[in-house]
Amino acid sequence: MHLTVVQRILGLLLMLFSVTMLPPVLVSLGYDDGASQAFVTAFVITLVVGLISWLPVRRQHRELRLRDGFVVVVMFWTVLSATGALPFALAEHPRLSVTDAFFESISGLTTTGATVIVGLDDLPKSILYYRQQLQWLGGMGIIVLAVAVLPMLGIGGMQLYRAETPGPIKDSKLTPRITETAKALWYIYLGLTLACVLGYWLAGMTPFDAVAHAFSTVAIGGFSTHDASMGYFNNTAIYLVGVLFMFLAGVNFALHFSVVRQKSLKVYWRDSEFRFYLLLMVLVIVVTTGGLHYHATHGSFHENFVHGLFQAVSIGTTAGFTTAEWHNWPGFIAILLLFSSFVGGCAGSTGGGIKVIRFLLLIKQGMREITRLVHPNAQIPVRVGNKSIPPRVVEAVWGFFALYVASFTLMYLLLAATGIDLMTAFSAVAASINNLGPGLGNVGANYAGLHDPAKWILCFAMLLGRLEIFTLLVLLTPVFWRH
Amino acid sequence: MHLTVVQRILGLLLMLFSVTMLPPVLVSLGYDDGASQAFVTAFVITLVVGLISWLPVRRQHRELRLRDGFVVVVMFWTVLSATGALPFALAEHPRLSVTDAFFESISGLTTTGATVIVGLDDLPKSILYYRQQLQWLGGMGIIVLAVAVLPMLGIGGMQLYRAETPGPIKDSKLTPRITETAKALWYIYLGLTLACVLGYWLAGMTPFDAVAHAFSTVAIGGFSTHDASMGYFNNTAIYLVGVLFMFLAGVNFALHFSVVRQKSLKVYWRDSEFRFYLLLMVLVIVVTTGGLHYHATHGSFHENFVHGLFQAVSIGTTAGFTTAEWHNWPGFIAILLLFSSFVGGCAGSTGGGIKVIRFLLLIKQGMREITRLVHPNAQIPVRVGNKSIPPRVVEAVWGFFALYVASFTLMYLLLAATGIDLMTAFSAVAASINNLGPGLGNVGANYAGLHDPAKWILCFAMLLGRLEIFTLLVLLTPVFWRH
Ligand SMILES: [K+]
Ligand SMILES: [K+]
Repeated sequence: MHLTVVQRILGLLLMLFSVTMLPPVLVSLGYDDGASQAFVTAFVITLVVGLISWLPVRRQHRELRLRDGFVVVVMFWTVLSATGALPFALAEHPRLSVTDAFFESISGLTTTGATVIVGLDDLPKSILYYRQQLQWLGGMGIIVLAVAVLPMLGIGGMQLYRAETPGPIKDSKLTPRITETAKALWYIYLGLTLACVLGYWLAGMTPFDAVAHAFSTVAIGGFSTHDASMGYFNNTAIYLVGVLFMFLAGVNFALHFSVVRQKSLKVYWRDSEFRFYLLLMVLVIVVTTGGLHYHATHGSFHENFVHGLFQAVSIGTTAGFTTAEWHNWPGFIAILLLFSSFVGGCAGSTGGGIKVIRFLLLIKQGMREITRLVHPNAQIPVRVGNKSIPPRVVEAVWGFFALYVASFTLMYLLLAATGIDLMTAFSAVAASINNLGPGLGNVGANYAGLHDPAKWILCFAMLLGRLEIFTLLVLLTPVFWRH
Repeated sequence: MHLTVVQRILGLLLMLFSVTMLPPVLVSLGYDDGASQAFVTAFVITLVVGLISWLPVRRQHRELRLRDGFVVVVMFWTVLSATGALPFALAEHPRLSVTDAFFESISGLTTTGATVIVGLDDLPKSILYYRQQLQWLGGMGIIVLAVAVLPMLGIGGMQLYRAETPGPIKDSKLTPRITETAKALWYIYLGLTLACVLGYWLAGMTPFDAVAHAFSTVAIGGFSTHDASMGYFNNTAIYLVGVLFMFLAGVNFALHFSVVRQKSLKVYWRDSEFRFYLLLMVLVIVVTTGGLHYHATHGSFHENFVHGLFQAVSIGTTAGFTTAEWHNWPGFIAILLLFSSFVGGCAGSTGGGIKVIRFLLLIKQGMREITRLVHPNAQIPVRVGNKSIPPRVVEAVWGFFALYVASFTLMYLLLAATGIDLMTAFSAVAASINNLGPGLGNVGANYAGLHDPAKWILCFAMLLGRLEIFTLLVLLTPVFWRH
C-alpha cells in the first residue's frame, strides 16, 4: 500500500471536486435564490481540505498499483459524498441534518436517486441544479470505473472486458489507461447529455429542467426537480425522450464508442449483451403494459401503455424516474419491476444492478450444468457471442452473484431488525443496492420517513452496489491489509 | 433411455407402495372410524395399476443407467403422489377435491408438510395415521435419494459424496449400490424413529400421537394430527424431545452411519458440515429468543425461550412444526426464520432447503474470490475440512444456487400474478421449495385458502425443491431427450 500516493490523489480529487461547487454559485446568483453562500463555503472547505491533503505529499509521483486502486475507488465515493453533502447541510433551505445531507449526497453520486427531501419544487434553483450535477458527475465516474478500473481490478468477472476497452493494456499501471479511456468516454457521455437536453427542451421542458433532467437521465440517476418526478410534466413526448435516453445510457459506453468509431449501428446488434438487454427490456415492457391493461389500472389503453413503457424502462435500467405511482400498481407488476432492477443495465453503463452480461453468463452456466448432467464426460465451454469464457471469469461471476444475494439478505434482515416493515425494508435495500432509487411501501415516493440508522444502512447499500460489492468488501477483509 | 426398464421399476414401486395402504386399514378397523373402505379401494387401484405396468415388461432385467435414474426419481415422487392422493379423495371425510388430495399427498411425500385440511382433530384416525406415514416413507425415500442416488447423478455438487457413502462404487450401475445403501440407512432411520416414539410417549403423548409425530419428526415433515400442531400439547418436555430429534434428523444420515460404525460421537464433530450446521442453528436460536425477549412477545422469559428454541430448530431444519404463531411474531424474526429455511438441513438428511454443505461451499468460494482480488496470481484451492474441492463440484454448487434463486423468483412472480398478495406468495413459495410447510401471511396456518392454480404451482415448487432442482429441470430440457 502506498498511502502517500493515495493521499496525493485524494487531495487532487477534492480540489477538482471543489470546482464543481462553482456552477451552482452562478445558478444561485442568476436566480437570486439566496443559497450562494452555502456553495461558496462548501467550495472553500473542500478546496482547503484538498490542499491540506495534497501539499505534504505533492512530490509523490510513484505509480498507483492495483491494490491502491481499491482504496482510491472507495475513497472517491465516500470522501466526495462527505464533502458533497456540505451544501445540503449549510444552505438555509433545505438545511438537512448530517445524516440526511450525506444520504442525499451519496444517493446523488452513486446515481441512486433516492431522496430524503420533500418539497423539491420549492427548493432554491441552485440546490436543485447541484443535486442533478452530482448525479451527472457520479455517472461519469461510474463509466470510467466500470470500463477502465474494474476490469483491471478483476471485479466480479469484469476482467472479461480487459482486452476490449480502448487504450493500451498495462496491467499494473492504472493511471495512463484511465486517463486515455476517460477522455474517449467523456465525449460520448457529453454528446448523449447534449442530445438529451435538446430532446427534453424540444419536447417541452424549460431550459433549466431540460438540463437538470438530462443530467440525471444519462447518469441513470433519477433525481428530479419536482416531487412528482417526470409525472410533473404530464407530457408523452417528454416521457418518450426519457425512455430513449435511459435506454441508451443503460448500454455499455465502450460499445457506444465502437459504434462511433466504426460508424455503424450494426455494431450494437453484434453485441450479445446488447441483444439480451433489449430482449429483457421488451419482455418486461410487454408484461407490464399487458398487466396494467388487464387490471385497467389507468383510464385508457394509451395511458397504461405509456406509463407501463416508461416505468419498465425507468426501473429496468435502474433510473428510477416515475410518471405514475408504480408502487401502488398491482403487487405482481410492482414486484416484477423491482426484480428487473436486479438485472439492471449493461456493464460499462451508468445503470445499476447485477448487470446484463453477468445475468447472461449465469443463465449460460446454469444451462451448461444441466447439459453436464446428461453428458457427464463432455467438455462444454461457456460461450458469449463467439468468445469462450475462461473459467476464472465464470467463477468470479458466480461469486459476485452469491455475494450480491448474501449482502442483500443481510442488509434486509438488519433493516427489518430496526423495526422497518418487511415490504419497505425489502424494497428499500433492493432500490439502494441496485442504485434504483424509489422503492415500494413507505419508500415509494421518498426516504424522508425512515429513521437515521436505516438511512445509514441504505447509504452502505448504495455504495456496496455502486462499487460492485467486491471493491468495498475487499477493504473490510484482513487479507487486504496484510503484507 | 430404456423406457421398458423404467416401466418395470414403476410397476414394482406401485405394487410396493400399495402395501402401505394396508396399515391404515388396520388403524381404521381398530378405531372403527369408517374410512377403511377408502384405503382398501386405494390399495386395489394402486396394486392393479402397478401390475398392469409391470406384467408386460417383467422380464426386462437390463441394468438401470444414469440417465434412466432421473426419470425413475421424478416418477417416484409424481406417480406415488398421484396414487397416494387416492385415500384423501375417496374417504367420506375429508373427501378432498383432486387438487387438494394431490397437494396433501405430494406435501406428505416430499416431507413439506403444508396442509390444505382444516379440522385435523376431527378427522378419522386412519387418515391422520396415513398422512404421517406418507411423510415417513417420503423421508426414507429422500435419504436414499440424497445419499445414494444424487451423488451418482452428480446433482448440484453432490458428487462430492460419491466416495463417502457406504457400499461399492459402480458408476453406471445404480441398483446394487442403492439397495445396499438403503439397507444401512434403513436401520438408522428406524432406530431414530423408535427412539423418537419412546421420547414423545415418555414426555406425555398418547401412543398414537407419539408414533404419528415421530414419523413426521424424523422425516422433517411437519404434519401433525392437530390443527394447533405441537402447540396442542402445551408441554415443554414434548417440545424438547421434538427439538432433539428434528436436529438429529437434519444431520447427514451417512454421518450417523459412520458414528454408529466407529462407535464414537467425535465423528460428528470432525465433520465440517455438522459443525457449521450446529453453528448456524445456535446463531438463529440466539437471535430468535433474544428478539422475542426484547419485544416481550410472550409472557415470560421461559416462554420466549422455549418457543424461540422450538421454532428456530423447526423452521431452520425445515420441519415446520409450530408451538406458537410464529407468522405473527415481529416481522424481522419471522423473516429471519423463513430465510434460515433456505439453508435447511445437511445433505443426506431429511431436511429441505439448499443444504448446509452447499451454503458452506458458497461462503468459502466467496471468500476465495475476495482473496483472489488481493492476490490475483495465487492458486487458492477451496477446502472443506482437509479435503480440496474439485472445480467441477464448486461449479455445480454455484449452478445449483443460481437455479434455486431463479426458480424461486419465477414461481414467486407467477404466484403473485395469479393475484396472491406479495407476502403470502413469497413465503408460500419459500416454504414449498424449501420443503418447510407453513409460511407467513395467509399461509401461516394452512394452505386451504389458496385457489387451485396457486396450489398446483406450489406442488411443482415442493417437487422441484425435494428433487434438488436439477433432477426435475433436466427432464424439461430438449438435450435430455435427444439421442
Ligand atoms: K437510479
Ligand atoms: K417440512
